Amino acid sequence: MFGKFITFEGGEGTGKSTQLKLLAEYLSSQGIEVITTKEPGGTEVGQELRKLLVCGDKDKFDATAEALLYFADRRIHLTQKVWPALEQGKWVLSDRFADSTVAYQYYGYNKKLSKETLENLYKIAVGDFRPDLTFILDIDPKIGLARSFAKAEGMTVKETRFESRQLEFHENMRRGFLEIAADEPKRCVVLNADKNIEDLHQDIIKELKERLDIK
Amino acid sequence: MFGKFITFEGGEGTGKSTQLKLLAEYLSSQGIEVITTKEPGGTEVGQELRKLLVCGDKDKFDATAEALLYFADRRIHLTQKVWPALEQGKWVLSDRFADSTVAYQYYGYNKKLSKETLENLYKIAVGDFRPDLTFILDIDPKIGLARSFAKAEGMTVKETRFESRQLEFHENMRRGFLEIAADEPKRCVVLNADKNIEDLHQDIIKELKERLDIK
Repeated sequence: MFGKFITFEGGEGTGKSTQLKLLAEYLSSQGIEVITTKEPGGTEVGQELRKLLVCGDKDKFDATAEALLYFADRRIHLTQKVWPALEQGKWVLSDRFADSTVAYQYYGYNKKLSKETLENLYKIAVGDFRPDLTFILDIDPKIGLARSFAKAEGMTVKETRFESRQLEFHENMRRGFLEIAADEPKRCVVLNADKNIEDLHQDIIKELKERLDIK
Repeated sequence: MFGKFITFEGGEGTGKSTQLKLLAEYLSSQGIEVITTKEPGGTEVGQELRKLLVCGDKDKFDATAEALLYFADRRIHLTQKVWPALEQGKWVLSDRFADSTVAYQYYGYNKKLSKETLENLYKIAVGDFRPDLTFILDIDPKIGLARSFAKAEGMTVKETRFESRQLEFHENMRRGFLEIAADEPKRCVVLNADKNIEDLHQDIIKELKERLDIK
């Protein structure tokens, strides 16, 4: 029996990691074996790629190179961690997956890359595999970025390569996530992330139960 | 006026770097402005990718992930170094380019990846751009690998992730380079690399003059 693959998507500062952790605790309490992971950097090799991708100068490579690196990280993540866990019947919760690449590299960069290119890369790296359920946490980028910068303040390694882009980038990206959700309403659920942690957690559990048909 | 893009290809220990250096000296002596570079790792970011790609365990990622990483490195190399130099009229000599990815990841791995996948990645990362001339240095892998291991002996960082594969891998790869050359005889010239350095250098200059129509 295969586990379920659930992804959390959204802009900076939407509280994805917090909600993912809460959901993992909830699932464990229900007797489900669950692992939590993230992109980029869900594997040892991926950690090296993550450093390249999220630190440093925002113009250190173009959208095409960036997309290739994200899909390389994704391929390693799937083959080494996600697929083996699902085959063992575990549930896998991932902080970001392919929708982020479309939202950032396609919508964020104002369609500098074609959608066809990203679809081709998806086919090459991921094949026909898709998440069973995707939570898109939605927030006004002004609020999200403020949260995200506040969090980065205390960090030694500043993962702010994307946060340092213009507000327009983040607004395009938000619109992107909403369009993705509109295109795939069965897989994606958009939730308002501008509320307190516990309320958002309850929204997530409610949707999970309805959509994955669990008790 | 655009410069020329010349690539050196072949298995391990064929003497590519030595011949590239000699050709660069020759071209400079003819008053041609030339830069030398390599893949993977022709740029600062690429150096990080090179470490991931050529060091460590041979099974640390699969052929698909490897191809994505090579094309990411290639994209960064082209946009940051190769294309700007060519636009300034410089000649660019590169130690390996896309033929190596086909020879290693397609032929070497016994066609685990489809050729279509590699062609799609080429289109995404490189577009219609191709080298003006490609030298394929050909040698029996038994001789090449012996040369390559002898060279690695003295190195602190052992770039032997590929050398450590079975001889069959290297024989497939050699056959791959010869097939590539047969498919594109105008761009590619195969030279016997099992001869002394100066003789091979002279072969290269002779072919260069004929094929690029220079005096």
